[in-house]
Parts: sequence; structure tokens; C-alpha cells
Amino acid sequence: MRQGFAIDLLGQLQAVAAGVTIELESALEARRVTAAGERLGLTPRVAIRVNPDFDLKGAGMRMGGGAQQFGVDAEQVPALLADLAGRGLDVLGFHIFAGSQNLRSDQICETQRRTVELALRLAPGLRDGIRYLNLGGGFGIPYFDRDQPLDLAPIGENLGRLLTEQIRPALGSAKVAIELGRYLAGDAGLYVTRIVDRKVSRGKTFLVVDGGLHHQLAASGNFGQVIRRNFPVALAHRVDAEPAETASVVGCLCTPLDLLADEAALPAAQVGDLVVVFLAGAYGLTASPTAFLGHPAPPEILL
Amino acid sequence: MRQGFAIDLLGQLQAVAAGVTIELESALEARRVTAAGERLGLTPRVAIRVNPDFDLKGAGMRMGGGAQQFGVDAEQVPALLADLAGRGLDVLGFHIFAGSQNLRSDQICETQRRTVELALRLAPGLRDGIRYLNLGGGFGIPYFDRDQPLDLAPIGENLGRLLTEQIRPALGSAKVAIELGRYLAGDAGLYVTRIVDRKVSRGKTFLVVDGGLHHQLAASGNFGQVIRRNFPVALAHRVDAEPAETASVVGCLCTPLDLLADEAALPAAQVGDLVVVFLAGAYGLTASPTAFLGHPAPPEILL
Repeated sequence: MRQGFAIDLLGQLQAVAAGVTIELESALEARRVTAAGERLGLTPRVAIRVNPDFDLKGAGMRMGGGAQQFGVDAEQVPALLADLAGRGLDVLGFHIFAGSQNLRSDQICETQRRTVELALRLAPGLRDGIRYLNLGGGFGIPYFDRDQPLDLAPIGENLGRLLTEQIRPALGSAKVAIELGRYLAGDAGLYVTRIVDRKVSRGKTFLVVDGGLHHQLAASGNFGQVIRRNFPVALAHRVDAEPAETASVVGCLCTPLDLLADEAALPAAQVGDLVVVFLAGAYGLTASPTAFLGHPAPPEILL
Repeated sequence: MRQGFAIDLLGQLQAVAAGVTIELESALEARRVTAAGERLGLTPRVAIRVNPDFDLKGAGMRMGGGAQQFGVDAEQVPALLADLAGRGLDVLGFHIFAGSQNLRSDQICETQRRTVELALRLAPGLRDGIRYLNLGGGFGIPYFDRDQPLDLAPIGENLGRLLTEQIRPALGSAKVAIELGRYLAGDAGLYVTRIVDRKVSRGKTFLVVDGGLHHQLAASGNFGQVIRRNFPVALAHRVDAEPAETASVVGCLCTPLDLLADEAALPAAQVGDLVVVFLAGAYGLTASPTAFLGHPAPPEILL
């Protein structure tokens, strides 16, 4: 047996046994899933994660195009499909993900057009045609001051046209998916933390809270941001009050990284007030180092 | 009662009852600790965390000097001490922390000299003199290619001179502390993760491991680094082998942030090999988002 081949096969066995669609990241993963299917006497349901030959312009995070850790390069897909033919996998289609966190609808539309075009170009390699097509995500949310919310209308029109003019004629009733994780969840979560101290140090006002980056790392700027910018913050019970001062909201950890808002314009804040950090519903608590420095984890409350 | 005064008093009550020395970060914290002592009929043991009027030049992380979230500005300390006199606190001394992760012994020596000078300047404000003096940390470890290990000899000589010529004559048998957390622990921990896939995407080689930034965030460059640089990495069982290729070690998470080594020179790696990431003993597992994307946490093994 090829070295390393058996690594993680337990995961593949469980996934195949559960009948989920496994999105294959590589030829090696395809071989593992094939072996899992043989061992179980089942036909694994799979799709190919494709690294497109274009990227999502203006994406906050590029996840396709060029050399990527994700998926199979588009130009390698035909050979992989040929190699997989007759190997007992049910290849349903493709997952093509070019990037995430984009606020420009024109760029998302263009990427979706190119994604469909790529899928249709790859379709002849699939024995039973494309029955599943994941067009990826990209729908951004406005985190920072000058960010404008995404204009959904043109994206809806574009998707409608792609469906009626290209996807349905070519792929019939294929299941078409888009991924909206952050777009749906980001704004649905708030991080709330209490001011336990208010300090002025050499002219600068600090509001010290009982939480910090161990609860909401992304707001501290330490989760992928190149230039740190403030997430939107407010004082609970004074959300509509006019800003009255410039203050930095810092966490309770003994590191200067623990900065939730740098010189933010806030209403006059007092010890005991609650600071609300918005957009904590995605890349929030689970993306934070909750065990750092032994502080307690916050409760998560569903309203 | 002043708003917010009672916040977190439970913590102060527990700390005072346990008899630990509490390093006060502010005048408000001093009042809380005083109240906790009164309620318990105990005399709290405290020290003042001082934000010095200088910083640690060349520190990887500045934690003193200028406006800071930490401690009490040096120039505010005399007034605070006067305010605390006769309030039932046993003020043992000072904690002065100027910065961390410095690899220049001359800069650490200078900072220690200035720290002692500042402490002696503040000493007259203490009724019973300084009995505890924490000179802070700063001792760095070499993370990156061009980093040189810290030369300890001059620091030892400098500290010896400070002790015999200044601290002992002025402060007698005061307890003097330095903080060496990362310096002692950083190199004592290794993060080990297994290669589960090897991919070439458009000319670039990726080694995909079964771990990632959820286990070792700092190595991904997402914990305070402004410019991402590789932590030292090696292949277990081939630590002494010559580099044979350039490969990027990427984690198993679906984010391009999950990069443990970018285009590192490594011996030829195969699926199944173990990748070792060094310097994981400080800011390692507990400083990582272990719950991110629902992957299992790694075991910690003490050897």
C-alpha cells in the first residue's frame, strides 16, 4: 500500500457510510474515498472541488486562481475525471470557489458567469453530466467604515439569467448551490462585554472590558486582516447617542494585541456599561483562542 | 456606591482571601481591592503596575511608555500612593514592564537600568519602602531566519551590578523578579502534525497536514505579526536531511490563512511524514482557536 494512503481513511469510511457528498480536494483523496467505498460495498457520492483558472477580483480573501491549497486545478480536472471513470464513484459535479468577502456585485456576477462557463467546459468529462454545481460564495458584509453593503439585486438578476439561459438548458435539473455562511450569519451575532475600568493614560482614554480577543479575535485585527481596522462597536443602552469622546476599547488580557476598538468615537462610557461588538456571528467565538491565559469562556445565548 | 464599583469584586475577594499579591492596574482597582479587604477583615497585599515613562527599544511588543492600557502612568504613581496611604493596603512595591520579545541584550540592559532608576525614584512614596520589585521581561527568542539568539552574559552582568550597586544599598532584601515566560517555555514545545496530502498546484507544492492554525495560530502569522514569516519547521525523522524542495505546509481548514510554512526549504516530504513546528511552547495551543470549524483538538503530551 502506498505510504500514507490509509491516513484518515476512518473519516472517509464514516462519510461514505453516512452517504454524504464528499467534495474531493485531490486525486489522493479520490483514491481514499474509492477504497472506503470498496471496503463498505457502497458507491461514494462525490464532487470535485475545482481550483478555477481565474480569481474573484476584489475579494477580501482569494481562494481560487493561481496556485492554491484548495481543490484540483481546473486544467487537471479532465485527466482526474478520466482516471476516476469506472472506479465506483458517483461523481455528481463540481464545487468551484473563487473567493470570499466581496462587496462588489459586478465582480461577484462576473465570477459567477466565469464559474458557470468553467463548469460547462468541464461537464463533458462527467459520465452522467453535472447533477450538482456549487458556485461558491463571495457575498461580503460591510465590516469597516467606508464599506458599502452588497447590492443583491444585480446578483439575483445575473443568477436568474445564468439559470434560465445556460444552466437549465445544459444541465437540466442539476442542483445549484451558492454558499452564504458569513453573509447570513455574520450580522446575526453580537459580542457583548462589560467595561470594568476606565483609564486615561497620557491623554488617551482606555475602556477596559472583562472580555477581549480570547472571545472575539477577529475584532482585534488578528484574524487575517493585514491592516487593523475597527469592527463597528457601540454602547448598549446608548446605541443612538451621539459620540462624545474618543476611546479605545481594550480587553483584559496582558497583551497589547487585546484591542477591540482603537480610538473609536463613542458616547461617554462608564464602568459597568456594556460594549457591543457587531458582526460576531461568523468568525466569532469559535475562531477565537478561548483558552488563552486561562480566562473563562463567554456564554453563547440564542435569542 | 459608584457605578461599576462592585464589578468583578468576587475576583478581588477571592484573591485577597487567598493572600496573593495583586498587581494593581488602576486607582479603581485599588479601591476594589481595598473594599474586598475591608469586607474580609484582611489586609490585601498589592503592588502597583507602573507604565514607565520610557519604552523597551527594539521590543517585538511594546508594553510600556506612551499611552498604555497597562498599569498606572509613572507620573500618576506618587498621587496614587498618597491616596492609598492609610487605606489598609499593604503596598509591597512595583511591577514595571516595558516590553517583550527583544533580542538585543544592550537594549534589555538599558531598560533594566531605567526600570531600577524609576523604581528608586518612586520608592519614597511607599511607607514601608519597596519590598517587591518586578523588573518585567523582554527576553526574546529567535523565531525567524535572521534572528540571533539573545546574548545572556551582558544581561547577567548588568543585573548583578544593578543588584549590588543600587538595589541592595537602597532596598535591602527586597524581592526582585524578572519575567521569563516565553524565554523559558517557547523552545520547550513542539507542534507535530501529519502530512495527509501532497499536491502540486500550478507549479507550487503544498503539503496538507491534519492540523493547522486551530492548533498553532502563531505559526500561521495571525497572532500579532505584521509581516508573516515562517516559524522554523522540519520533517520528523529527517531533521538533519538537506533541503530538497520548496514546499508550503498548509493546514486542513478551508481558509488560506491556514498556512504553517510558506515556501519552506524542506527535505522531500511524503504523505504520512510528520511536520514539526518549533517554538510552540509559548503562545501555542492555548493561543489558538481550537474550536474553529469543529476539528478535534490535539493532545498535549509532556515528555
